[in-house]
Amino acid sequence: MATKIPKATAFKRSPCPVASTLDLIGDKWSLLVVRDLLHGKQTYGELLASPEGIPTNILADRLKRLQEAGIIVRSAYQERPVRYAYAVSEKGEALREVLLALVRWGSKHIPGTRTLDAPGPDTGRTRSRKAAGE
Amino acid sequence: MATKIPKATAFKRSPCPVASTLDLIGDKWSLLVVRDLLHGKQTYGELLASPEGIPTNILADRLKRLQEAGIIVRSAYQERPVRYAYAVSEKGEALREVLLALVRWGSKHIPGTRTLDAPGPDTGRTRSRKAAGE
Repeated sequence: MATKIPKATAFKRSPCPVASTLDLIGDKWSLLVVRDLLHGKQTYGELLASPEGIPTNILADRLKRLQEAGIIVRSAYQERPVRYAYAVSEKGEALREVLLALVRWGSKHIPGTRTLDAPGPDTGRTRSRKAAGE
Repeated sequence: MATKIPKATAFKRSPCPVASTLDLIGDKWSLLVVRDLLHGKQTYGELLASPEGIPTNILADRLKRLQEAGIIVRSAYQERPVRYAYAVSEKGEALREVLLALVRWGSKHIPGTRTLDAPGPDTGRTRSRKAAGE
């Protein structure tokens, strides 16, 4: 007899780590937000300006969900009006490995793809917050 | 001045390999289908029986899209009525690295997750097609 998952489980679909991870970041946008934060972007305006053209309501939703999942953290860097800066947590930083696997797969199997503004995953951290434009 | 992507590009959002890969498999189900095929499942019935409870219309759609993307291949193993077996292509096999990165992240950062029916990624290839139940 198969082991049943208790009803009270926190798992949406199954305890499989792949399924559970996809429950958090299994969509077209979440990992692009993480990508941008790993590349040094910090503000809502910077994230909104990425070439994929993320709709503002989607960006707001993903930031909220990633924060609730403990993948990103938000801090106010200005008051009146309040402005927030976003950054990956340690848990979010660990998604770098997933992103690198996606980069390797896409670069090899989707002709013409190229990384956009960062030569490597460990660069881009020096970009200034002033580029926010908001 | 930023380099503009030509209108005629095949890229849905940008030439970033992450974005382009997520255009193909950036959803909650596609990589679970690939996971199951890598674990030796072959038939529609076997895929449908996975613990996440994929809805049949979603499964049919994802199989079609993964096939169009060259990630999986379909072959008829029976006629009248025709029955299809699915398998990963070389391109799909290469997604194993992405899945392993997701397994590592989920296992470490989502408490309680565990791999379901396969002790490792290189097992499960010996399962029989007769378990299809369809």
